[in-house]
Amino acid sequence: MSFKGKIINDPIYGFISIDDPVVFRVVSHPYYQRLRRIYQMAFAHLVYPGAVHTRMAHSLGAYHLMSQALGELQRKGIEITPDEATAAKVAILLHDVGHGPFSHALEGTLVQGVHHETMSRLIMEHINAELNGALDTALAIFNNTYHKPFLHQLVSGQLDVDRMDYLNRDSFFTGVSEGVIGYDRIIKMLTVHNGQLMVEEKAVYSIEKFLVARRLMYWQVYLHKTVLAAEQMLVRIIRRAREIGAGCHPNLHYVLYNRPDTEDAAELLRRFTMLDDVDVMMAIKEWQQHPDRVLATMCTCLLNRNLFKIKLQSEPIAPEVIAQKKAAIRQAHPDVTEEELSYLVFTGEARNTTYKTDDERINILFKDGSVRDISQVDNALIQQSLAATVGKQYICYLSV
Amino acid sequence: MSFKGKIINDPIYGFISIDDPVVFRVVSHPYYQRLRRIYQMAFAHLVYPGAVHTRMAHSLGAYHLMSQALGELQRKGIEITPDEATAAKVAILLHDVGHGPFSHALEGTLVQGVHHETMSRLIMEHINAELNGALDTALAIFNNTYHKPFLHQLVSGQLDVDRMDYLNRDSFFTGVSEGVIGYDRIIKMLTVHNGQLMVEEKAVYSIEKFLVARRLMYWQVYLHKTVLAAEQMLVRIIRRAREIGAGCHPNLHYVLYNRPDTEDAAELLRRFTMLDDVDVMMAIKEWQQHPDRVLATMCTCLLNRNLFKIKLQSEPIAPEVIAQKKAAIRQAHPDVTEEELSYLVFTGEARNTTYKTDDERINILFKDGSVRDISQVDNALIQQSLAATVGKQYICYLSV
Amino acid sequence: MSFKGKIINDPIYGFISIDDPVVFRVVSHPYYQRLRRIYQMAFAHLVYPGAVHTRMAHSLGAYHLMSQALGELQRKGIEITPDEATAAKVAILLHDVGHGPFSHALEGTLVQGVHHETMSRLIMEHINAELNGALDTALAIFNNTYHKPFLHQLVSGQLDVDRMDYLNRDSFFTGVSEGVIGYDRIIKMLTVHNGQLMVEEKAVYSIEKFLVARRLMYWQVYLHKTVLAAEQMLVRIIRRAREIGAGCHPNLHYVLYNRPDTEDAAELLRRFTMLDDVDVMMAIKEWQQHPDRVLATMCTCLLNRNLFKIKLQSEPIAPEVIAQKKAAIRQAHPDVTEEELSYLVFTGEARNTTYKTDDERINILFKDGSVRDISQVDNALIQQSLAATVGKQYICYLSV
Amino acid sequence: MSFKGKIINDPIYGFISIDDPVVFRVVSHPYYQRLRRIYQMAFAHLVYPGAVHTRMAHSLGAYHLMSQALGELQRKGIEITPDEATAAKVAILLHDVGHGPFSHALEGTLVQGVHHETMSRLIMEHINAELNGALDTALAIFNNTYHKPFLHQLVSGQLDVDRMDYLNRDSFFTGVSEGVIGYDRIIKMLTVHNGQLMVEEKAVYSIEKFLVARRLMYWQVYLHKTVLAAEQMLVRIIRRAREIGAGCHPNLHYVLYNRPDTEDAAELLRRFTMLDDVDVMMAIKEWQQHPDRVLATMCTCLLNRNLFKIKLQSEPIAPEVIAQKKAAIRQAHPDVTEEELSYLVFTGEARNTTYKTDDERINILFKDGSVRDISQVDNALIQQSLAATVGKQYICYLSV
Repeated sequence: MSFKGKIINDPIYGFISIDDPVVFRVVSHPYYQRLRRIYQMAFAHLVYPGAVHTRMAHSLGAYHLMSQALGELQRKGIEITPDEATAAKVAILLHDVGHGPFSHALEGTLVQGVHHETMSRLIMEHINAELNGALDTALAIFNNTYHKPFLHQLVSGQLDVDRMDYLNRDSFFTGVSEGVIGYDRIIKMLTVHNGQLMVEEKAVYSIEKFLVARRLMYWQVYLHKTVLAAEQMLVRIIRRAREIGAGCHPNLHYVLYNRPDTEDAAELLRRFTMLDDVDVMMAIKEWQQHPDRVLATMCTCLLNRNLFKIKLQSEPIAPEVIAQKKAAIRQAHPDVTEEELSYLVFTGEARNTTYKTDDERINILFKDGSVRDISQVDNALIQQSLAATVGKQYICYLSV
Repeated sequence: MSFKGKIINDPIYGFISIDDPVVFRVVSHPYYQRLRRIYQMAFAHLVYPGAVHTRMAHSLGAYHLMSQALGELQRKGIEITPDEATAAKVAILLHDVGHGPFSHALEGTLVQGVHHETMSRLIMEHINAELNGALDTALAIFNNTYHKPFLHQLVSGQLDVDRMDYLNRDSFFTGVSEGVIGYDRIIKMLTVHNGQLMVEEKAVYSIEKFLVARRLMYWQVYLHKTVLAAEQMLVRIIRRAREIGAGCHPNLHYVLYNRPDTEDAAELLRRFTMLDDVDVMMAIKEWQQHPDRVLATMCTCLLNRNLFKIKLQSEPIAPEVIAQKKAAIRQAHPDVTEEELSYLVFTGEARNTTYKTDDERINILFKDGSVRDISQVDNALIQQSLAATVGKQYICYLSV
Repeated sequence: MSFKGKIINDPIYGFISIDDPVVFRVVSHPYYQRLRRIYQMAFAHLVYPGAVHTRMAHSLGAYHLMSQALGELQRKGIEITPDEATAAKVAILLHDVGHGPFSHALEGTLVQGVHHETMSRLIMEHINAELNGALDTALAIFNNTYHKPFLHQLVSGQLDVDRMDYLNRDSFFTGVSEGVIGYDRIIKMLTVHNGQLMVEEKAVYSIEKFLVARRLMYWQVYLHKTVLAAEQMLVRIIRRAREIGAGCHPNLHYVLYNRPDTEDAAELLRRFTMLDDVDVMMAIKEWQQHPDRVLATMCTCLLNRNLFKIKLQSEPIAPEVIAQKKAAIRQAHPDVTEEELSYLVFTGEARNTTYKTDDERINILFKDGSVRDISQVDNALIQQSLAATVGKQYICYLSV
Repeated sequence: MSFKGKIINDPIYGFISIDDPVVFRVVSHPYYQRLRRIYQMAFAHLVYPGAVHTRMAHSLGAYHLMSQALGELQRKGIEITPDEATAAKVAILLHDVGHGPFSHALEGTLVQGVHHETMSRLIMEHINAELNGALDTALAIFNNTYHKPFLHQLVSGQLDVDRMDYLNRDSFFTGVSEGVIGYDRIIKMLTVHNGQLMVEEKAVYSIEKFLVARRLMYWQVYLHKTVLAAEQMLVRIIRRAREIGAGCHPNLHYVLYNRPDTEDAAELLRRFTMLDDVDVMMAIKEWQQHPDRVLATMCTCLLNRNLFKIKLQSEPIAPEVIAQKKAAIRQAHPDVTEEELSYLVFTGEARNTTYKTDDERINILFKDGSVRDISQVDNALIQQSLAATVGKQYICYLSV
């Protein structure tokens, strides 16, 4: 049977082509289709109503950029075989397949102690077995054990197609146009030197712009205080439900109450791949009527966008501020317990780094053959001081 | 307490301002927030993955265009009081609040025999009571009993802000850029003559373009054959579930099994306003394991985007084609019943009209004061022949 | 010496690649570079200030679309050799190289009786001689003598890349966003059947949209009454200058006063290829001080955008209206002659056809292998009545 | 006679409204209309073919942003009278009216020793006299003698509407999409504190983005090496012409050969206001045939885009490199003089500063009422090191 190919409309890139039968089988797999039902940006849509795009749309977008990047490198004479190209495309398609409901927002909360990359690997292995090893190279690239490291760097690195797509896409759907990056220009300037992914000298200003766009998106969107409040409420809803043993649909129940290290891993994976945002949203809708008033309150508030108040600042939250917020609730509800208050008033830290220099770098290849990190070029905008992780402190509380 | 106003980011229009306390209360109401959880385009995202935008985003967009249109008319000297302006804005915000899960796709299926406009009216009356009559004028405009008919025509007419927004928005999110309309130009050319909404003479080509964009969006997007297949599967899932008495969450259950004419209307409304896409999606997820194999099959196929095949044509579907599709299933599943087959092979008609001339018109106001319908101008593109409803016949079937 | 290729930034398409040495030589030729100094839309910028884009930008854009279209056809299995591809690209690059200053606006006025396509052919032959026949195939395609007619149809036909680019580009630079067409979608749907260029069945609505966009651009932009007035003033400036023997730079002078049929064709061509908008603009600037008051007035009015008034209507201009405009001028300037008045008050007709069915057609290839014209499909928007040329009458006059 | 207002289409902002009779008279003035014939970006179009937009389009765009900014400040309760608003709009419309042909590229070369702001002031005074003092306040704002300094800062400052428009516009027309700035967001966040223009705290990331976009546009576009080469050739064409007394049209001739300090200033101004790019382009076209071979060569090369080669570097150009380039020319043209060589091989420096902290600042108004410079906020991206002017050295030479 011949494979005719498929064209998908994308609001950002126009047409995305699926022109390989393995890619088509991966995209058609129920595990992949599940990504349709997971928001890319969790509850950011409570602030940016357009931001309801899905993990699947992002995955397809990153796949599209991967196709472009591979084509560009091939045009520049870098050897990439057809099998390697397919494998790199599959690797990027599946790089986020291990995300659970509300992805980052519930990472570590829903399935405790397991990172989504580990889940992605398990799911890829599962699909690989179904497809009789067709994903072997994709897995090697994903795991960074393949002998051409630049392929892994395209999937996951300081300048990977994952970031290029999510910055662009999140910017597009939120309407925060300042997050738009010149992805086509950056892709045109990618190159490979000694097996490593680099960018050409003239890309310096585009890279600076990319890093500054990322910085802006973090503080203005991903760590927007109202988004933070909503996502922290979600985390506490799950924690509270688990703590009091709140009932829910069997799949969600299984994942909530079985730790990954002690239980049947295969069963956990099976249950996990049936979960998406729908299950969690449905549980929250039901828990509005739960007898536990903390759980019910948090669920009703979140659903009706009647969110906890939040305050962000550079300095630690003063103990007296916390005490004052608790006192206000106690005045309105004299029978509230200290344990309940720990859900209704809480503090935390939002963190971001503009540019990490320690673990991975953005290497610039100069015309004279020398290689320097973006923070080491002449008159660099990106400096050592931006490599530090910046934390902002917040207090979040039920307003009474 | 003073009202500070609120700005919402929209990917299409940039900033949308909420600058009126009544509007703010409406937008904050749980009945309005529910629209966040209803897809604007039901299952169109199975073909256009970006099209996951919500009824709420559309409603806010239409509200924004209403603000622009009212401002433009005021600049032209048309009298619109501040109260009328607020009322028109509230009317457009709530014009779709009566949509249930998957809106048009399940209209008439979920709540049998009740149109979403009726539901919108009931909900508006409910909120109006809560707000002590603050929505009286909005209701009059919505019901077209207000003495300035152009205000109703802005909410609902051949050239209302509802259509302007949904064409633009659906075009934007699907990536079908050809649906984009020059809404700003049309709004600049709106006027009122004898109390009726009209457009100025020079708008003729923009209006033609608007109608052609609408025609294109219907055939290319809303009635796209794969979208049709998915939505018809959804309709039959609900019908089958009701027929066999499939279990589901109490709110959905109540609405499924109580006809609006025979039951307690207040209770039905209460249950209805707690439903959104989540409830239906959750039911479909659960019904994948339902013992009724027809229901389970349809649910699994829909969730995994393993859709029934569909064929569209101008001529009626020949009986032998239907027989042949049924025979194929019978061969694979010899014990299938005729009643089951009626779910697995079915036919229908997709219908659209490019321009309705009978009930409502797009009136052009000429410089000499005369008024003509768009289909009556010199060298009209929009002609009588486009006023006929065009139907395309389809057959949809499980592929075995 | 190896050819490295060149990338050009375009505000519409992003990056345009020049990847062929023959294409590069053509683009570098002074005859081609001259197109930088000719407005694509003559004096449309008096109404749409952004519309100052050049013939060269349009030519490069059409070249880019040609590259895309050829690639798409090749992917569909249509045989196009590398030499044919280069030739088709060169043919589109040079299709407009014969345009003189202010292109269409002065067509037939500056070089009397010679169409720009004839000039393009002469210039192509000239460059071909310089390049030792490297443009032989390009010329055959341009002249429609090549044995694959679809290549000529891509250069010049109802659905050629020339129109696709100019509609898009003119729409982009004027800000009349309604002229934007779904060029990428149309290109994806191009095909070749029996050697003829066609579009696939599903393109019907996109083609309708394309024709309606073109109709809109004609009446709203190209034949905008103020643009018409400015361009008719320009035509009459040239006519008046020639009539009274006004002085100007030798190259312009030679072309103005030598008829192409009676003079040394090689010398005329040589002079012509040195002319561009600059020469005409400079002459107009100088003629502001010309003793002939008609010429001086028209030049000053045009430069300062103090344009003649214009009135457009369906019916012929009544003789008494003309008489009245002349009388008004005569009252202000009693010594004005009838001959002078013929420049200060004049009438004419603006003409456009939405869809020509007689000479060339847009053929739709149906899945069953049948071919029908766009005006013959089911429920066609494009009908016979749109094939008629529509004329609007205008009177243009100096306002005193 | 009542003033009806006028709407201008702009490809970037959509509709620009002229709703004030004084503004309308300014825009209609021949001195203003002259800006139609001056490229905003001189010869940048040799690299970015779309960048042929005019000073007038930029001026109208800045005017539009001024209208938006004033409206926003008024909404925030800052007192701006209708007269002040009109004056601020006129001031921005005319801020660049003193630019001569090719604006920045020939600044100081054509009219020696006079800055374009001085010329703008003289022209504004001239129009003011014509309009009987209607521009008094506009002049005071322009000259920064008005008692509300924030109005001047909107016209000219680190965050003025001039920069916002040119970054946006130049980015749009070049196709370097990375220069796009979130102008609407910045405008929404403008405020006035103690009479000074400031931005609110939450604008920090948008301002960073604005400064980085500006940095990128400088190095990637304005100081692009090929653009530099073309503009330096233009400067040397004018210098050479003046040196050898090359003939040209009387207006250009007068300006070339009369120093502003020694001659009749009124006559110089009169001549100057009749010059635009056309005069200089025409002279260059004529000088192609000039007997001075240096002048003729430079003119022919510039017109045919056969530009001098250029090399940019951080270090000074080594004397031996200069000598080597001169030797190459001498070998090809043994009779070339050292004086001629000074035109055919030359060096220089391109300079830019990312953020000037000495003279003017971008002040951030914090919620607690404190004011800090953008370089002083927490975790600032914009640091002291970016306040230094960065120079790159170049050598530019005729390639033989």
